[in-house]
Amino acid sequence: MSGLIGLDWGTSSLRAYRFDGTGRIAEARARPWGIRQLPEGGYDAALADVTAGWPALPRLACGMVGSRGGWHEVPYLDLPADATRLGQALARLRAADGMDVHLVPGLRDPLGPDVMRGEETQLAGALALRPALAAASCFILPGTHSKWAMVRDGAVTGFRTLMTGELYAVLQRHSILGGHVPAADDEAFARGVATARDSGAAGALSRLFSARALMLDGALAPASVPDYLSGLLIGEEFRAALADGLARRDAPLQLVGDDALCARYRRTAALFDIELPPPLQDAAAHGLWRLAVQAGLAVPASEETRAC
Amino acid sequence: MSGLIGLDWGTSSLRAYRFDGTGRIAEARARPWGIRQLPEGGYDAALADVTAGWPALPRLACGMVGSRGGWHEVPYLDLPADATRLGQALARLRAADGMDVHLVPGLRDPLGPDVMRGEETQLAGALALRPALAAASCFILPGTHSKWAMVRDGAVTGFRTLMTGELYAVLQRHSILGGHVPAADDEAFARGVATARDSGAAGALSRLFSARALMLDGALAPASVPDYLSGLLIGEEFRAALADGLARRDAPLQLVGDDALCARYRRTAALFDIELPPPLQDAAAHGLWRLAVQAGLAVPASEETRAC
Repeated sequence: MSGLIGLDWGTSSLRAYRFDGTGRIAEARARPWGIRQLPEGGYDAALADVTAGWPALPRLACGMVGSRGGWHEVPYLDLPADATRLGQALARLRAADGMDVHLVPGLRDPLGPDVMRGEETQLAGALALRPALAAASCFILPGTHSKWAMVRDGAVTGFRTLMTGELYAVLQRHSILGGHVPAADDEAFARGVATARDSGAAGALSRLFSARALMLDGALAPASVPDYLSGLLIGEEFRAALADGLARRDAPLQLVGDDALCARYRRTAALFDIELPPPLQDAAAHGLWRLAVQAGLAVPASEETRAC
Repeated sequence: MSGLIGLDWGTSSLRAYRFDGTGRIAEARARPWGIRQLPEGGYDAALADVTAGWPALPRLACGMVGSRGGWHEVPYLDLPADATRLGQALARLRAADGMDVHLVPGLRDPLGPDVMRGEETQLAGALALRPALAAASCFILPGTHSKWAMVRDGAVTGFRTLMTGELYAVLQRHSILGGHVPAADDEAFARGVATARDSGAAGALSRLFSARALMLDGALAPASVPDYLSGLLIGEEFRAALADGLARRDAPLQLVGDDALCARYRRTAALFDIELPPPLQDAAAHGLWRLAVQAGLAVPASEETRAC
């Protein structure tokens, strides 16, 4: 029996993939068991449950499971890093069931310093899905902590974390700007993006209070404040990335992530006169398979083998 | 009996001043009764308590007491606005004790739009304390919502609100950057300021995650994260204000506010090679007296009158 069990194990969720011998996903499961909210019995119990009934295959995990507060700390790998180096740097732990779990290291950009855990696997998967982007590109991975990662010759050469998602959440929940029920106001979103885009070198942090002042002024409905704020913060990502040279108008930009959030990023890009192609999906799963092959944990079946 | 009762009535506190006929503060009282946390009996009870035993003098109040959620909404006055226009635009309400309370309007900068309530009175007081700054200057009023206000020919001609204090509080209490007990680390504060200063046109919002990454990297002690974050956010105020032309190296900058917070701003300014003089204190009280005189509510006793 050939194949792989891949685990995308983050702060708030656990996704498990059973790959067949050709790298196709035969089955996927999800549990709300991030490393901060494990079931009784901890990591071992979570692993046993999420893989119940699956054959004994090599197991490879990525994400916060390898962080200091995770199951087993795996040191960050310094940039530049490509799939080969990542595959060589896997760590290993012995689970209670007597079998190993291999762990993908996170990446560290010494120039920040900045760090990522889990996104390195998504990037490996994204490059497997779009080999043409390996030469020179910039990947955008939106989320609680968005990552903008530069790739040159197949290796990640630099990245930056932007706390857009978390900032939106804490402002919406705990600040004077929050508390309004979102109305899904596309126009308010675009207005927030434009405010960030046009804020010049001062930047959108200096325009944050506009979400309140516009509302007091009667120029923004309370229910439109959340979308305005979302546009302002995502717009600031693009403004800062362009100012910093992270995003360059002459290098392809590629989104990686779920549709709903990526749609906001595509809309924002359009307001910056940047055309973004549709996002790549299931990049973590593709990356787990690719890194497992790279490390020799998984052996892809050739067409001949499968024909047997 | 001549004199004035001045009330600086904000979101979280109430300060009352009894002025003698020459504008000196004869007595000052403070209560934790901001407009969001009034005692039983509401505004009238708070007023009766904080002025208990004081003579029946004209009463002038500034701050959030005149906001939509306050005692009586006073429309904002559009810029440019000097003490004369403010004095002419006072509103009036009849309290339960049968006597009036006059209210100072807030200011609105139509170019933001941006708004302030309470700071207009501090600015009037600051200009009374430093008449030489009336020609051309920029005042910095640090706080939950910091204000940078430009003054030309005695009038406020533009201002901007920066949510520095609130942002620090919500990040410290509710984000992944928070939860560490501050160690009063001056060096970490200076490092945060330098990170913001050197962030170029990208700005410090794009460097926010550095507070986490430096800690994970072992380059910043957990207890030093709060001071680093404070430096990053205050440094960003200066970077953005300089980028925006709000602060100009050829116009005097003047701090207004309490010593501890203003000391952080002076330190920050020094790291931007800007020398800031000590902050002006009790500006709200001075402003209340000045605006009351301007409006004819208070009549300053001349030296001759006092000699009688």
